[in-house]
Amino acid sequence: MNKFLININGELFNEENAKISVFDRGFLYGDSVYEATRTFNRKAFRIDHHLDRLFSSAQKIELIPSYSKSEILENINQTIKASAHENILLRIILTRGTNSDLGLDPQLASVNNLIIISKAIAPNPDWWLKDGVSMVFYQKTTNTRGSLPKTGNYQENILAYKNAATKGAYDAIMINTDGHITESTTSNIWIIKDGILLTPPLADGVLNGLTRKTLIELAHREKISFKEQSLTKADFFSASECFITSTTRNLVPVTKVEGNPIGTGLPGQKTIELLKMYLEFVAKT
Amino acid sequence: MNKFLININGELFNEENAKISVFDRGFLYGDSVYEATRTFNRKAFRIDHHLDRLFSSAQKIELIPSYSKSEILENINQTIKASAHENILLRIILTRGTNSDLGLDPQLASVNNLIIISKAIAPNPDWWLKDGVSMVFYQKTTNTRGSLPKTGNYQENILAYKNAATKGAYDAIMINTDGHITESTTSNIWIIKDGILLTPPLADGVLNGLTRKTLIELAHREKISFKEQSLTKADFFSASECFITSTTRNLVPVTKVEGNPIGTGLPGQKTIELLKMYLEFVAKT
Repeated sequence: MNKFLININGELFNEENAKISVFDRGFLYGDSVYEATRTFNRKAFRIDHHLDRLFSSAQKIELIPSYSKSEILENINQTIKASAHENILLRIILTRGTNSDLGLDPQLASVNNLIIISKAIAPNPDWWLKDGVSMVFYQKTTNTRGSLPKTGNYQENILAYKNAATKGAYDAIMINTDGHITESTTSNIWIIKDGILLTPPLADGVLNGLTRKTLIELAHREKISFKEQSLTKADFFSASECFITSTTRNLVPVTKVEGNPIGTGLPGQKTIELLKMYLEFVAKT
Repeated sequence: MNKFLININGELFNEENAKISVFDRGFLYGDSVYEATRTFNRKAFRIDHHLDRLFSSAQKIELIPSYSKSEILENINQTIKASAHENILLRIILTRGTNSDLGLDPQLASVNNLIIISKAIAPNPDWWLKDGVSMVFYQKTTNTRGSLPKTGNYQENILAYKNAATKGAYDAIMINTDGHITESTTSNIWIIKDGILLTPPLADGVLNGLTRKTLIELAHREKISFKEQSLTKADFFSASECFITSTTRNLVPVTKVEGNPIGTGLPGQKTIELLKMYLEFVAKT
């Protein structure tokens, strides 16, 4: 049973045959936007939010979609239906299209390419919840502010990840040029400090994560003390708990930063409660 | 006669069949480096410099090439030999490879993909030399410093180009967050002011262009008054001449910036002399 099933402009391919023109602008220039979502009960989770964000990312890079949201949704549902797997990750990539010539001019491509990569989801490893993961900081060289678009330009995040892996850490916590914590390379980051749940505001140059958004909604609903607040390294070292959120991995406890234990050095009690609350919520969708 | 001929890992394809896996990291994350060179007399121009810079770009993004320089050169020469055209542009793309799974981890790809796109070069349009081209400024949001790697992350340059095209300009002159002029979207930029030839230093966040490098060598040889110097918008408005350099386009006179004429508003005399000197040099290679 294939782990992957790929939909390219409405046609289904297995891993070996899923190919795109070398003139595709995503390949040539990273000129694409994307979303990553997953299914629960064979249904794409909060897909309307993902499609809204995909179109918002497209707008930020002045990409005018040649696919409508309902056409993209149709291709997503076609992929879910054809997949042999109960739970899949869906990476939805919209590129500015195939160039008729080399060159940056967006007018060289008139029709987008829509690529949906579906992948069987493995459950999170047990040790994530038992021991938590470790992180190191990474100083970004860009001073991009505001809610970031999700694009095919991931060079800096790759360097951040690679640097963390070299140091034996699970992932990196990125810092913007103002010295503010932003996010991890493919997830949002949170701490609990003085009993308050904290995460950096989008304005600091953060991806508007949908698990982040869902958790904020749940915190409000459950009257959990919560604030969006600019955070520094020092806040992490004085935090009692820390975790990351991602669509595919839900909540993952972070128990060590730069080799120093966060709180007790074990997954925090509030983190586990938030994870439980989150999983109960998604189970009902 | 096909305009394009594409070499993918040593195999030749025409435009329609030149495809790459959607798991290629260049496609997924812009995780690639590249070079653009051209042939003169069916020989790749200063190819040793280009291969050196390709490997230097790779080093900057911590990409360890699985191809040696001589293997890449072999594929380049194979492409030139197979091409039906006398003068071709060569875009040499080295991606970190095809991922075995989704994810930023560079270890998910063990072998690079080498793609060489060759294209018949059309001569520069006559009006470039007769009238010159117009430019507008573009404020970058990144404060990257030093000599830039040439990677598959070109989103910001695309936005800069698009903004210029919307305003009816030929291209954009980019400004870093320190307020210093860096380069155009795919070329280096120069002015002549008080009789001195000036171009921004690499330290301001500039690509180490090989036509730029060649012209600096020629300026030294010919004892032309030249300085690498940080430049601002104001320098452009008080310049007597302006031009850009690019491997495929050589020197192109810039006669208007933000709607204001540079000098007389016609291609400058020194620019034409430098172009003549440059063409004489490359004709002998």
